[in-house]
Amino acid sequence: MKTIDVCLSPDLMHLYPVNDRTVVVVDILRATSCMVTALAHGVQSIRPFANLEECRAMKSKNYFTAGERNGEKVEGFDFGNSPFEYMADNLKGEKIAFTTTNGTQAIAKSQGAKEIIIGSFLNLSAVTEYLKKGEDSVLVVCAAWKGKVNLEDTLFAGALVENLKNHVEPDCDAPLAAQRLYNLAKKDMVDFLKDSSHVKRLNRLNIHKDIEFCLTPDQYQTIPKLVDGELVRA
Amino acid sequence: MKTIDVCLSPDLMHLYPVNDRTVVVVDILRATSCMVTALAHGVQSIRPFANLEECRAMKSKNYFTAGERNGEKVEGFDFGNSPFEYMADNLKGEKIAFTTTNGTQAIAKSQGAKEIIIGSFLNLSAVTEYLKKGEDSVLVVCAAWKGKVNLEDTLFAGALVENLKNHVEPDCDAPLAAQRLYNLAKKDMVDFLKDSSHVKRLNRLNIHKDIEFCLTPDQYQTIPKLVDGELVRA
Repeated sequence: MKTIDVCLSPDLMHLYPVNDRTVVVVDILRATSCMVTALAHGVQSIRPFANLEECRAMKSKNYFTAGERNGEKVEGFDFGNSPFEYMADNLKGEKIAFTTTNGTQAIAKSQGAKEIIIGSFLNLSAVTEYLKKGEDSVLVVCAAWKGKVNLEDTLFAGALVENLKNHVEPDCDAPLAAQRLYNLAKKDMVDFLKDSSHVKRLNRLNIHKDIEFCLTPDQYQTIPKLVDGELVRA
Repeated sequence: MKTIDVCLSPDLMHLYPVNDRTVVVVDILRATSCMVTALAHGVQSIRPFANLEECRAMKSKNYFTAGERNGEKVEGFDFGNSPFEYMADNLKGEKIAFTTTNGTQAIAKSQGAKEIIIGSFLNLSAVTEYLKKGEDSVLVVCAAWKGKVNLEDTLFAGALVENLKNHVEPDCDAPLAAQRLYNLAKKDMVDFLKDSSHVKRLNRLNIHKDIEFCLTPDQYQTIPKLVDGELVRA
């Protein structure tokens, strides 16, 4: 039977061989929620960068530059890290270079995986169905916050474990812990997360609307997949 | 206000400065449960070793040698890793050199802390009271399993967060996650853990009695504390 494991922090990636796995990278607040939103609204591709200056340099190659550091838009970049920015008509067919504090770092640390896709609550059911049909075992890589485990990415990992429970077997304790937390939280995730450190951090930045949107399941069927270093629709 | 944070795996210790913190090391199944039991039953001191051969060499210095690798007693050692072995009368006043797969590694990675004490469900209330009275912020270091997060150590961390909630503030998301899992599990921890990977591993080794004992709160008032490289009664 296929298995599912959960890497709760990119700083634990050395424990998880990925060469035979489908990796699902998740950064609910807000990198992977933005990526799903952008591709769902017609952006052609997103090239993720761990390094900020490499990302900035893509401007000269006809990419829009986008992203944040510590939750705030990077100076000189075209877009920040709010999913609502990626619904604009003038982004249709365009390419974006994207860098964030945690999400694009997690993608970089997942290199070497058999396949890398992007998950968020916004495309939860689509990702679930994709993993059900896939032949490979799954590793959910939580972007966390500068290496520290966070609740919102853990809840998403738990949602996948729960949704796949009749099809894919949990590998270790992290998927079990995530699944139990998700089942505890799923009736009202906004409420469950109100004490979490990242929600408090973002509330200080006045982006409660972003948080509510990022915690809303199944807005899109789009699954971003990494192909030749660019995220495109799977 | 003092804070409490939880390091869910020794492989995340680089994220947590400890020089001004009281560190509580926990390896419920079974290293720290053994340590508490041994000191409670009159063992004079326990010297923890990350390295197996360094531990073995202590035999020539009038130490009993004790511990496990992968859950099984080390060949040639005097004792294994069952708390029931440490209740023997002939251990009273003796010194033990101890090495385990995870617990003594977590102690080694906590070096540099202002203070290192040992926690387990067996001394939960005593540790709670000790931390309430202490002036320093707290870091709970979960021994985990070869770096991978486990449920039982996470539950103990959550028990401390819950018991200290009116006195010590959670620092980040890991304590919140642990606290919620503990509140979900506390009515019947043996049942909650029945699917966990380490319980399944130990059940294969036929030590269900150990598991039940290690999950029983408040058998002892003893708090092992690291002083000059040896665990002694605080």
